Amino acid sequence: MLKCRACDRTYKDDCSLWRCNCGGYLTYFRERPLEISRESIRSGPLSMWRYRSVIPVGPEVISMGEGVTPLVKADIGTGEVLLKLDYLCPTGSYKDRGISVLTTKLRENGVTSLIEDSSGNAGASMASYCARGGLNCRIFVPHYTSAGKCVQIESAGAELVKVPGTREDTSAAALEGARSTFYGSHNWSPWFVEGVKTFAYEIWEQMGWSVPDNLVVPLGQGSLVLGAYRAFSELLEAGLIDHMPKLHGVQAENCAPIVRAYERGLGSPVSIDKIETVAEGISSSQPLRGEEVLEAIRGSKGSAVAVDENSIVEGLFRLSSCGVYVEPTSAVVVPGVSKLIESGAISEGETTAVFLSGSGLKATDKILELRRKTK
Amino acid sequence: MLKCRACDRTYKDDCSLWRCNCGGYLTYFRERPLEISRESIRSGPLSMWRYRSVIPVGPEVISMGEGVTPLVKADIGTGEVLLKLDYLCPTGSYKDRGISVLTTKLRENGVTSLIEDSSGNAGASMASYCARGGLNCRIFVPHYTSAGKCVQIESAGAELVKVPGTREDTSAAALEGARSTFYGSHNWSPWFVEGVKTFAYEIWEQMGWSVPDNLVVPLGQGSLVLGAYRAFSELLEAGLIDHMPKLHGVQAENCAPIVRAYERGLGSPVSIDKIETVAEGISSSQPLRGEEVLEAIRGSKGSAVAVDENSIVEGLFRLSSCGVYVEPTSAVVVPGVSKLIESGAISEGETTAVFLSGSGLKATDKILELRRKTK
Ligand SMILES: [Zn+2]
Ligand SMILES: [Zn+2]
Repeated sequence: MLKCRACDRTYKDDCSLWRCNCGGYLTYFRERPLEISRESIRSGPLSMWRYRSVIPVGPEVISMGEGVTPLVKADIGTGEVLLKLDYLCPTGSYKDRGISVLTTKLRENGVTSLIEDSSGNAGASMASYCARGGLNCRIFVPHYTSAGKCVQIESAGAELVKVPGTREDTSAAALEGARSTFYGSHNWSPWFVEGVKTFAYEIWEQMGWSVPDNLVVPLGQGSLVLGAYRAFSELLEAGLIDHMPKLHGVQAENCAPIVRAYERGLGSPVSIDKIETVAEGISSSQPLRGEEVLEAIRGSKGSAVAVDENSIVEGLFRLSSCGVYVEPTSAVVVPGVSKLIESGAISEGETTAVFLSGSGLKATDKILELRRKTK
Repeated sequence: MLKCRACDRTYKDDCSLWRCNCGGYLTYFRERPLEISRESIRSGPLSMWRYRSVIPVGPEVISMGEGVTPLVKADIGTGEVLLKLDYLCPTGSYKDRGISVLTTKLRENGVTSLIEDSSGNAGASMASYCARGGLNCRIFVPHYTSAGKCVQIESAGAELVKVPGTREDTSAAALEGARSTFYGSHNWSPWFVEGVKTFAYEIWEQMGWSVPDNLVVPLGQGSLVLGAYRAFSELLEAGLIDHMPKLHGVQAENCAPIVRAYERGLGSPVSIDKIETVAEGISSSQPLRGEEVLEAIRGSKGSAVAVDENSIVEGLFRLSSCGVYVEPTSAVVVPGVSKLIESGAISEGETTAVFLSGSGLKATDKILELRRKTK
């Protein structure tokens, strides 16, 4: 069942709307209890589809074997944490988990062509999964998007539309295009989070069917917080774990609408003037599901912290000096953990898992530039 | 036990030589039969270390969770094959499997600093695993190596030495350096293949504990052929599979010393004049273990084929149009499969697994250039 948060209207799972008729966004709710069995997981495939009993799609999935990414111990300068290397999904970012489920569900529902807008990872993922699943796709990107990102999208056979102006102008152009073609936006889709959540199931399995005290994730639109909250809630409900990990979201100081709301005790993201940040993947000034994200953070007894540009770059170099090569966006978690320890949000002796979202191989030019500046 | 192919001399596993005193290369041989249990594999970690009973190292491993890469069905223009997306290892290439084992074993044996020479994936992998394992490392690269590759190596804290002249001059400079520092060369090391082989174990598990009729791999130095031959031989010996897959190696026409030997029925790679190829990762004119590679190919009733530059580029675009984004080297397998079907080396109705070795995200500039040329 799909439900609108704004007006409570409900729709069937196979409805062909990308949002409620009132203009609000839709969220998926299960109608039957989940059946989760460790044994069936262990005998399942070596991909996120080993958790298919918790993924609400039919048997014909659009998959490239995404998931089962490494969880490895490392000292990132603040004592030992567990790093979830989720950038090792097929197109180089965790978005593949959500896009796999989203494209599968849309194809089930009869969609054959769709539109997405993205300045980065989601566009590459959408183009690749549409190619794999035989869907036509048009990706709107800001005109300044790097050649490297464009070539990955075009190589997959997607139609690339470069839009003059800002990132917001790109979204507007995509919305305009969505009058005639299905708007597959991963932010708007109720299905995206149903794939993203599988990373949290994996952490549970990889920790020997237990969960950490803390989970620290980069925070832009908030799909990682929402995915984790959903997965851990499902596991709690099924009696398979005994506590909800504290979910901590890390934003860049230059774009921290959720952190500002969290600090002030507000229920909705604060309106901000976005400044450019090296963590471009989480530079979302108006997160669509921001209220829900704040609820999940507070519901888990977690928190939201913002980190400055210098500390992000230092975090990036800290990770690469451990052999872990990520894009700058992912590196926010390093100073994030530091701040969370300082503030007491993470206590000594607690276990902490840290999520790394995008591959450094996508950001060669940027990393080169940052290294030159820092020398 | 390590054994020299040239003079039959043997050494203990913990010997600190990188080659035999006679100058020949060393190979590892087991002294005890393997214990392989499906149940212990299934309950093991979600990485290649689920096969640790077949990896000859102690308990303290240098790992970033490499392995358990996807195996997915796809039609690459020649009917359905199984693609092994092994470029989804931590640093973007399958080399991580071998480098994980190599660095682990060297550290066990007391090595604290090492030298490697590479123009690409092996250097990035070695730098990253040395960073992870606390080993010092110096990577020799040809002066023309792209900034992107250099930045990945330097980010991991390795010392980068750019050598004027050819790729061969780089090897010579590394050998010179090896007079005072351990030469960790993955080509010379007897341990590299013990990690690489795990991909074949994974195919066995992912195919429901069975193996394909054919396995098609890019062929340069030949570590994939040797790794697969070793793994499947071990599985045959343990009675866990009933046949050896035919192992087919694909080289670029511009650098095909093993194919030329295979065609002429010779036991050693043919001396060739190497021409530049877009498949730079397999541009090895004098493969060190070439004789063994030819034995493995013939022993498995497989074959070796060479493909031209145009067909490699077409193969690359064919893969990306399926959503599979690899570096040009990996794409040799696409025309390779085609040729193998034409020649009858692969028969209709047989199952074929195809190995993809390196990520397209490492080759953005190259792919951009190829797309521009082709338009
Ligand atoms: Zn509504
Ligand atoms: Zn010898």
